[in-house]
Amino acid sequence: MQPSSRQQMILGMPSYREPAQRLAAAAGCAYADIDVHTFPDGESRVRLPAQLPEEVVICISLDRPNDKLVPLELAAATARELGAGRVVLVAPYLCYMRQDRAFVPGEAVSQHVIGHALARHFDTVITVDPHLHRVHRLDQAVPVRRAVALTAASLMTDWLGANANAPLLLGPDAESAQWVSAIATPAGLEFGVAHKQRLGDRDVRITLPSLAFAGRHVVVVDDVASSGQTLLEATRLLVAAGAVEITVLVTHALFVGDAEQRLRAAGVSGICSTDSVVHPSNRIALAPLLAQALSEP
Amino acid sequence: MQPSSRQQMILGMPSYREPAQRLAAAAGCAYADIDVHTFPDGESRVRLPAQLPEEVVICISLDRPNDKLVPLELAAATARELGAGRVVLVAPYLCYMRQDRAFVPGEAVSQHVIGHALARHFDTVITVDPHLHRVHRLDQAVPVRRAVALTAASLMTDWLGANANAPLLLGPDAESAQWVSAIATPAGLEFGVAHKQRLGDRDVRITLPSLAFAGRHVVVVDDVASSGQTLLEATRLLVAAGAVEITVLVTHALFVGDAEQRLRAAGVSGICSTDSVVHPSNRIALAPLLAQALSEP
Repeated sequence: MQPSSRQQMILGMPSYREPAQRLAAAAGCAYADIDVHTFPDGESRVRLPAQLPEEVVICISLDRPNDKLVPLELAAATARELGAGRVVLVAPYLCYMRQDRAFVPGEAVSQHVIGHALARHFDTVITVDPHLHRVHRLDQAVPVRRAVALTAASLMTDWLGANANAPLLLGPDAESAQWVSAIATPAGLEFGVAHKQRLGDRDVRITLPSLAFAGRHVVVVDDVASSGQTLLEATRLLVAAGAVEITVLVTHALFVGDAEQRLRAAGVSGICSTDSVVHPSNRIALAPLLAQALSEP
Repeated sequence: MQPSSRQQMILGMPSYREPAQRLAAAAGCAYADIDVHTFPDGESRVRLPAQLPEEVVICISLDRPNDKLVPLELAAATARELGAGRVVLVAPYLCYMRQDRAFVPGEAVSQHVIGHALARHFDTVITVDPHLHRVHRLDQAVPVRRAVALTAASLMTDWLGANANAPLLLGPDAESAQWVSAIATPAGLEFGVAHKQRLGDRDVRITLPSLAFAGRHVVVVDDVASSGQTLLEATRLLVAAGAVEITVLVTHALFVGDAEQRLRAAGVSGICSTDSVVHPSNRIALAPLLAQALSEP
């Protein structure tokens, strides 16, 4: 495939090849692999196509990021070295967005350090539903010329329209309120928001809102499922409240360890995620959304 | 322990705590841990002492580097943020020094990218026996104000004096010639240098020099033992040539996979390394050498 008239090429890393290829197809532009070889001593050798167009788009998911950031930095610096005029990062899952301040003195503000590291290599960063808290705009976290935070909300509304019959939507915490509303409102779906207290990495307390869950199909929506504790706690309460069907709908399917198995054991019958993180539960391709953002100047 | 009069503090990462503590003891200055917590999703949370002196020395070995470079970058940026005026990296094993040019078009010159990334965070970088080829000076690879490449040669001479009786030293390739000479000459030891051809990551051909190996204790010295193929090939030839005892003496004991077992099976009776990379074969502490370099302006 030749570079498109826009002189744009999508480059994929081995860990995220298929979604990157879907993005190239949706954007109607060339695709090539970034070859990443691991030497016996654990160092990476990174190879790009020797001929690059004006704009190079590296598409990678930054879940479990530490081992991916070094090859990514090697690839981005090399794209520039090879003459690319504009280097774009499409990271549907963007890492290190949660640590946005020093919670105890001496703690690294990882969002700031990693955000600035990315900004040294990329002109544009495009992501989906970044987990921002106290910093509200993506360009404050990743100070690039163009920082784009997309949301999967409309794709989720479409998916629910095609796959669920009058479900009741539940957001697990106050931070999800606007987002759950954005998913539910266009389709005229009922929704509620729970109250959450986080007590540790894997310890959360949930209080359900006062809604009639008995006999209902409840879809718990969240931006990210990591240890799954929030979703698990919500599921237990929903089962106790008489919900007859429980679906989990998330943008980012990290599902650390046995998180998915524990959710299913607790009563979740369906899990749906976008392909921001490669996982068996992926049902929603982000490619159309990402391609649209790429086509904008 | 309080900061020394030089207002210097050594900080150690979990993967290299004991050697960092030995360095602090040898340098007579304060030591503190960098606390690195791994969240369930694979991200790192890094904490430094909230009160830092003027000069902060982060001591870490960068073997198997990809997973260590992100916490290191978080720590170095945070040290600066907390007010350290000078941030020093002591990395007895420095990563990504071999890939110093693009061997095929489009390949990342990792030495350049990683060297510049380190230079953004550190004022001084101190290492031991870096594996430099076409770039000969460390400050060309890591462009910091003060780049110090130490050699373990004199410590090896001392170790041989105390632990070997008139051994014959063998360097495995032309690149090791000067270094083997530096180890052998002060003690008046015989030495030779083999000829090496590298055919792949794990495929090398060695030709021994014309020396009388029969009946001798031969010490094969090299800067790094990674897959161990070079040392293994040399060992086989030395056994065939009648050497009665074979010792391997290296600065950096990477010993990937079953490299050590294969060497022992081939006839190596002793392995000795510095503590640049933590390994059961460590016999030579680099702390005095590193402390001396730290004490210089």
